[in-house]
Amino acid sequence: MISWKNLDALDAYQELKKTERVNLVEAMSGESGAERVKKYSVPMAGGLTYNYAAKQVDDDVLAALAKLADEAQLTEKFEALYNGEVINTGEKRRVLHQLTRGQLGEAVVADGVDKRAFYVEQQKKYKELADKVHAGEITNAAGEKFTTVVQIGIGGSDLGPRAMYLALENWAKKNNTLKMEARFISNVDPDDAAAVLDGIDVAHSLFILVSKSGTTLETLTNESFVKDALTKAGLDASKHMAAVTSETSPLAKSDDYLAAFFMDDYIGGRYSSTSAVGGVVLSLAFGSEVFEEFLSGAAAEDALSKKKNILENPAMLDALIGVYERNVLGCPSTAVLPYSQALSRFPAHLQQLDMESNGKSVNRFGEPLDYPTGPVIFGEPGTNGQHSFYQLLHQGTDIVPLQFVGFKNNQMGVDVVIQGSTSQQKLCANVAAQIVAFACGKADENPNKRFEGGRPSSIIIGDQLTPAALGALLSHFENKVMFQGFVWNVNSFDQEGVQLGKVLAKRVLAHETDGALKMYSDLLDI
Amino acid sequence: MISWKNLDALDAYQELKKTERVNLVEAMSGESGAERVKKYSVPMAGGLTYNYAAKQVDDDVLAALAKLADEAQLTEKFEALYNGEVINTGEKRRVLHQLTRGQLGEAVVADGVDKRAFYVEQQKKYKELADKVHAGEITNAAGEKFTTVVQIGIGGSDLGPRAMYLALENWAKKNNTLKMEARFISNVDPDDAAAVLDGIDVAHSLFILVSKSGTTLETLTNESFVKDALTKAGLDASKHMAAVTSETSPLAKSDDYLAAFFMDDYIGGRYSSTSAVGGVVLSLAFGSEVFEEFLSGAAAEDALSKKKNILENPAMLDALIGVYERNVLGCPSTAVLPYSQALSRFPAHLQQLDMESNGKSVNRFGEPLDYPTGPVIFGEPGTNGQHSFYQLLHQGTDIVPLQFVGFKNNQMGVDVVIQGSTSQQKLCANVAAQIVAFACGKADENPNKRFEGGRPSSIIIGDQLTPAALGALLSHFENKVMFQGFVWNVNSFDQEGVQLGKVLAKRVLAHETDGALKMYSDLLDI
Repeated sequence: MISWKNLDALDAYQELKKTERVNLVEAMSGESGAERVKKYSVPMAGGLTYNYAAKQVDDDVLAALAKLADEAQLTEKFEALYNGEVINTGEKRRVLHQLTRGQLGEAVVADGVDKRAFYVEQQKKYKELADKVHAGEITNAAGEKFTTVVQIGIGGSDLGPRAMYLALENWAKKNNTLKMEARFISNVDPDDAAAVLDGIDVAHSLFILVSKSGTTLETLTNESFVKDALTKAGLDASKHMAAVTSETSPLAKSDDYLAAFFMDDYIGGRYSSTSAVGGVVLSLAFGSEVFEEFLSGAAAEDALSKKKNILENPAMLDALIGVYERNVLGCPSTAVLPYSQALSRFPAHLQQLDMESNGKSVNRFGEPLDYPTGPVIFGEPGTNGQHSFYQLLHQGTDIVPLQFVGFKNNQMGVDVVIQGSTSQQKLCANVAAQIVAFACGKADENPNKRFEGGRPSSIIIGDQLTPAALGALLSHFENKVMFQGFVWNVNSFDQEGVQLGKVLAKRVLAHETDGALKMYSDLLDI
Repeated sequence: MISWKNLDALDAYQELKKTERVNLVEAMSGESGAERVKKYSVPMAGGLTYNYAAKQVDDDVLAALAKLADEAQLTEKFEALYNGEVINTGEKRRVLHQLTRGQLGEAVVADGVDKRAFYVEQQKKYKELADKVHAGEITNAAGEKFTTVVQIGIGGSDLGPRAMYLALENWAKKNNTLKMEARFISNVDPDDAAAVLDGIDVAHSLFILVSKSGTTLETLTNESFVKDALTKAGLDASKHMAAVTSETSPLAKSDDYLAAFFMDDYIGGRYSSTSAVGGVVLSLAFGSEVFEEFLSGAAAEDALSKKKNILENPAMLDALIGVYERNVLGCPSTAVLPYSQALSRFPAHLQQLDMESNGKSVNRFGEPLDYPTGPVIFGEPGTNGQHSFYQLLHQGTDIVPLQFVGFKNNQMGVDVVIQGSTSQQKLCANVAAQIVAFACGKADENPNKRFEGGRPSSIIIGDQLTPAALGALLSHFENKVMFQGFVWNVNSFDQEGVQLGKVLAKRVLAHETDGALKMYSDLLDI
């Protein structure tokens, strides 16, 4: 029997607060440091490893976190989720994104449909589209092949798929599986759409309109923008557009699209990269085999998240350490620092995933919470960040916990030796150096050159950023955020906080404003 | 006589802490809100306005901030800076980036050279290069025009110039002044350089190598990467490369470059967008007239920063309100939210500018500080952010102060009317709506749909993002960060916190490691 309790109502949380703080500088120095790196490591899927040696934990803290996981019933709650219980209580919805990549538990039947079968069917449908487009069986009106796919969507219909595309674009080039280039239009700023259209050959472009409700204002506006451009170019827009939407949306059966693929209310936007929302554009760009490898990486990582032992469950462990940092150590933000240019937009995706899921002040019953929940998430790829905001991370007045990601091999396979090492070796040397610099610090007579250390980090290490590794990485963070939501007792699957702005924006456009809102509208010439 | 005191040693700070907290929900509601929007507004250069009506301040708080500015001698310290005093005491250097755009005070003579004349001379030199490249007088060996300029640099040699280029790329296209496309290579990840080289026509590309010391490892590595590619393409690398460096660097007089332009130790990387670091690439991309308009906008904004009255000095006012939020209201981070796709990388630039300048724990004398200094800075363009992390901003447990930027007109001049309004109107309606939603909130019976409000923001509003507006925007934030550094009594112009990582990375590459560092090196196959 699951019971949903606030974090501060759990005995294990009170115990956790009483554990002794680890002196990270000492722990990570000398032989003790080497032993920690060996010991505090857990395998992930996709050839990845989660190493948490440089986190401010020891066996005592880990034991307390295990008790917390147990008392908060994290495994049971995940089980309830993947077996189809209505976990998104606010919106009275199931939470089924894991089903897009595998069957983790019992069959989930909703509205008379087996949901795993439904998602597989959609995947088959867009595999067919992709195969036909690649084979030249679906072409533009002139019978010419499409060369570019453009996703039109915002939020979860943009950030995840875009980050995934960028993560694999070079890998696909190198492995001769980049079938089409992908572009993304998201912002309602008309210059966004105009610039994308300016940079592509519309006559050979296929547009994927993504909106679950079929009513997202930004996306419909950008669709019109694109249709205008197609019409002006003398093209039949309906031959250049497909839709990803829910079966009940106005877009579902429209003649405006050459095909429509379905998602449903059981998959939130920020969790939709492995559904048709990511699947159509990624299958078109890379071929469906690559997309399937990506799904298999995610599925394998999901399976690990079922494990009850936190030391064998990287997502759960990562989640618990994050709660310890947020609620016991009092850290208000977390930086995500991938040492891979291909992951340049991965932090932006995690920013949405994490902050939209757990940036909540009430629990799942609507009661106000007395403890901090989701932190601010930000990040840029290393080594770029090193020459930017790392100054504050090393010597600022607040401690910012860090999440590194690094790979032994690059994607393009091109490299150069300078001063006795390759670029890839320099990249890896930097991330290793940073972890130790943050943890151990350095004494110096000049206080300005002194590093206190004691700044915690973890690293996910892989052989190479492949489709399977990317799938595992994505699933890891989705499940981490889910587990943290369980610990904080918030609903990680709604987003009521985005509604008020929408309502007021409509009022501005209808000129139904007064007070400050009218004044700002005037200042902005609306 | 200037005296450098810690914030908590100032009487005005103690007074500030005693001022009554403003109830932002009340203040911004009804007529009071309308009056605040009218009243709490100050003109900037470049047609911009800084409006702080939705900040948690009133006349009492502003009066206390004015006293703080006075006691902290902000105007006098700025005057000392632009008159050439050694303000970067740690590195014993002057701070002269404002001189690249105008003479704010007395002539500054250093090492026997008038520094304003020196910067103007460099500007003239790269104007000449740009003009000749555009006229086809400087070409590749085959006598063909260069079409692309590629900046090779990292940190300040990358983020600022890249953000400025992206900010004006579409404006330049629209105004027929995009002379060359620009690309940027920064990361030591070899896939970064490989992907950029893959996407350009190297035979018609001019590379600008930017490194003040001439020894930045990432940049030299990427230079070799590029030289390799040029050589493999049968091209003479020295005909395709120019350098931006200091006069004493190994690059300054090398035959490897067709030209060299100089910067000096008086301009920090993160403050270098208006020096040759930004000037060469921007003049080549847009033409030197556009770059000069950009400088004039910055110069006009610098002039405003001299004003003693904080209500007429937007950068100083913004700085003081930020200090109030950080040290009195206790907010650990700040979000920058431009409602303009062209400013997509502007938050990343500000992240470096702010966090590298003021992320310090010791004062300018090396004494530890007992109060928080620089906050975490992050942000993405609206409306994209609305569909991502705004959930936490509206309903999260921590308050994050916000900095909006918006323009009445877009850059490309292409738009479409949907549901009775243009995209540009929708964009502006959204930013107006967000400000009021954050400030005023909304009651609701369902606590999950309740918005507490009281979340402070300011907005910078302009007619259009032009070169002059961009220059003013850049200068505003540079000067804001400088004033905050004065208030916190930190040295905003060094970055000792980036050194330790560099030292340890070298040790890894030399295989001189033990303990945890050796273990991580092994895990990463170095």
